[in-house]
Amino acid sequence: MINFKLVGALSLALALGACGTETSNSDSHSSQSEAVAKKLVASSPELKTLSDIALAGLHGYEITQSLTTEIGARQAGSENEALARKWAEHKFSDLGFKNIKTEIFTIDGWERGVESARIVSPSNQNLFVTALGGSVGTPEGGVQAPVVYFKDFEALKSAPEGGLDGKIVYITGKMERTKNGAGYGPANMKRRNGATEAAKRGAIAVLIRSVGTDSHRFPHTGQMAYDPAIKKIPIGALSAPDADQLDRIFASGEDVVINLKLGAKSTGPKTSGNVMGEIIGTEHPEEIILIGAHLDSWDLGTGAIDDGAGVGIVMGAAQVLMQSGLQPKRTIRVVLFGSEEIGLKGGFAYAKAHKFTDLERHVLATESDFGAGKIYGMQTGMGEVNHTTIRAMAPEFKFLAIELLEGESTGGPDIIPLSAEGVPTIRFNQDGTDYFDLHHTPDDTFDKINPEDMAQNVAAYASLIWLVSESTSTFKDE
Amino acid sequence: MINFKLVGALSLALALGACGTETSNSDSHSSQSEAVAKKLVASSPELKTLSDIALAGLHGYEITQSLTTEIGARQAGSENEALARKWAEHKFSDLGFKNIKTEIFTIDGWERGVESARIVSPSNQNLFVTALGGSVGTPEGGVQAPVVYFKDFEALKSAPEGGLDGKIVYITGKMERTKNGAGYGPANMKRRNGATEAAKRGAIAVLIRSVGTDSHRFPHTGQMAYDPAIKKIPIGALSAPDADQLDRIFASGEDVVINLKLGAKSTGPKTSGNVMGEIIGTEHPEEIILIGAHLDSWDLGTGAIDDGAGVGIVMGAAQVLMQSGLQPKRTIRVVLFGSEEIGLKGGFAYAKAHKFTDLERHVLATESDFGAGKIYGMQTGMGEVNHTTIRAMAPEFKFLAIELLEGESTGGPDIIPLSAEGVPTIRFNQDGTDYFDLHHTPDDTFDKINPEDMAQNVAAYASLIWLVSESTSTFKDE
Repeated sequence: MINFKLVGALSLALALGACGTETSNSDSHSSQSEAVAKKLVASSPELKTLSDIALAGLHGYEITQSLTTEIGARQAGSENEALARKWAEHKFSDLGFKNIKTEIFTIDGWERGVESARIVSPSNQNLFVTALGGSVGTPEGGVQAPVVYFKDFEALKSAPEGGLDGKIVYITGKMERTKNGAGYGPANMKRRNGATEAAKRGAIAVLIRSVGTDSHRFPHTGQMAYDPAIKKIPIGALSAPDADQLDRIFASGEDVVINLKLGAKSTGPKTSGNVMGEIIGTEHPEEIILIGAHLDSWDLGTGAIDDGAGVGIVMGAAQVLMQSGLQPKRTIRVVLFGSEEIGLKGGFAYAKAHKFTDLERHVLATESDFGAGKIYGMQTGMGEVNHTTIRAMAPEFKFLAIELLEGESTGGPDIIPLSAEGVPTIRFNQDGTDYFDLHHTPDDTFDKINPEDMAQNVAAYASLIWLVSESTSTFKDE
Repeated sequence: MINFKLVGALSLALALGACGTETSNSDSHSSQSEAVAKKLVASSPELKTLSDIALAGLHGYEITQSLTTEIGARQAGSENEALARKWAEHKFSDLGFKNIKTEIFTIDGWERGVESARIVSPSNQNLFVTALGGSVGTPEGGVQAPVVYFKDFEALKSAPEGGLDGKIVYITGKMERTKNGAGYGPANMKRRNGATEAAKRGAIAVLIRSVGTDSHRFPHTGQMAYDPAIKKIPIGALSAPDADQLDRIFASGEDVVINLKLGAKSTGPKTSGNVMGEIIGTEHPEEIILIGAHLDSWDLGTGAIDDGAGVGIVMGAAQVLMQSGLQPKRTIRVVLFGSEEIGLKGGFAYAKAHKFTDLERHVLATESDFGAGKIYGMQTGMGEVNHTTIRAMAPEFKFLAIELLEGESTGGPDIIPLSAEGVPTIRFNQDGTDYFDLHHTPDDTFDKINPEDMAQNVAAYASLIWLVSESTSTFKDE
């Protein structure tokens, strides 16, 4: 095991000339970072080569198109996820990757089944509903019960225990639209814990306003969780227009009765897996730079922005590096994780499988899993060396309109388990303003992706893996 | 029967001072009609009063909210359409209308049932499908067959007879987005006649790319037609992203097999009806100015833009006139037609029911049925008197940014049967740029409506009924 030192980070900073290479922007009237970016150029011939190839091409876009068109939806543990692993092996091979490998693991299967929701009083109206991932189903024939309105998850938690016997709980509340996705965490509380909190109080089922920012008639699915000590009750999400409709009916003072049928059920152990391919490093092949994405998707859409785009971006970035003829000193490993959606299963499986082999030799890891929007920022991982090195590297990305942002990141969902094992991380921050319009809905389809935005992502990841490969930093403190 | 003369139109033109009252626009740099409109004022105290009330209020918006929230979807012949008639009677009564009446008629019922479509080869992918209105269903268990691609309806019509035995026909082709809806007619040929042309050639089912302009995973329904001499085969519409997906798969050269299940079926005779209410004219109560909309909707959405908005606009306009204290000389009749969606059934029933009573005394008729977008134009009906009178009247609407457009109109779908019987018509043209994003989809819900745009519509219709009431024109040639 090579003992890198803190000086590595500093030497990288010097090597990159980070303090002096920021290209000046002579157009002082320009206020848009896009406009600024167009005037900036890569600070080295290698970055120019890589970005020229990426920005002129459709590397990521075409890979995402291939995956989402040829396979479609790729639910964790499904036959289609297995086909996606085969697709990935072939794609890695076609693109010239080495050490192509699939690592299988087992998950608890779940399927959605037939589902419906209907207001039966005060009027007869169909609602667009979908079960949250992992939810139990309703009894045969469904449940039909009076509905109790809660303006948000906090209001439900404030309700007395046992006060909701035999009722269906409805939790509304809109998610905030933000560029960085900050609205997701708060809005997601009701999705993850709504069933448990409602069951504690005697409810027989839960409906939430979808965790999403759109105004279309698509419910958003996503994994929920049960407290093992509390009775499991079914939970579904309503589309935003349906939630608006319910909100209006409740506002009119009417009592509401809903009939809910969720055919969701567990299907026992299923196979999932991670697929990976490498560009082998010329000088330090044992040192691994991991760029990942997740191969699985929810069943409703074709998993284009979540996370077909990420698959295209990271495979495309490595493809660009190969096409450039540049030879990375460290090994670039592209990992496509399975079963991310149901609880980062691929990330945990990878951390477990590699813990006693090469995990310590992972120099840096990151995942692209926030859609296909442009990258506008980057964040360091944890630790002094990581901070120092990545801060020094950050100006190299200004020509792509990427700025260093405050705050640390664990590098993406599937990287969390690696980060927990000490693997250094970095994160590119994509513009997610529209991400939660599509996230986990049937509307997550390939037509939503902008090829130019994807090409910028590919350029950024290609630049990243090159720079990290050239660096001598360990990215981690001793 | 009163014998109006052509001179009536001319006298109206003089009375309105049409040649001189156009408010000048001093801002010669402004190019936007909106901006112009803001500088214009109503040409008479009465129009100012009416528009002030309308533009400051939510008359139409609240009526549409009430209908779409309290009733929801209102399919022709359904229980919900019957409830909507009750709703309309109560709403007319609450708003102070007189002579409230429901005229019942019988239609052929149809219901959608459970439906699904799935690519089974070359991959396993769910498709979002819906039956077109009036389609027969597939046999029990569905149909599964190879799919033959046609780039548009013309391509299908060019195919030899009998060449599609046992096949599912797929007709793609995008609808053009336009302000005036001109893309609808051409795109709609495959919807209306696709089943017949495919059946002539031996096909067992048809799938079309939806007639719509959006990129969401909503299929657009809408009435289709069978040629009685040709075998009836089922026809469904796919959402735009699903059509894109199929187009990509066909472009790759793969053979496609689809499994299609449409539970659609006829349900025998059902009751529908038209509901109407009046403001009785002070001087010529026997002369009727008809402003209409249709009360029914498709079953998928809640019929907000099609045509809850129209219901709100025309009821709201008459409400504004009542609130103003102005007394129209002629009778204003607001008619809410039933079963428009399945072939203008309400319009035909109205024409038949009134043919030998008061149809000759209808001075002018028009329908609001193109969503909730702003009105930007108006068109005359047919005939010299109509042309002369409405052209003279048109400048009165410039303060609402409404311009006289070229071309004649029959006044809206349900007015066609009235026009055919000689009833004079006029048409307000709404901005329909986004209309076909939502039209006939589950996504046609109240949240899509802009209250300011609706208020402008209400102001226009309130102004119209006032001006026509004050006019002495017959609006028709002898």
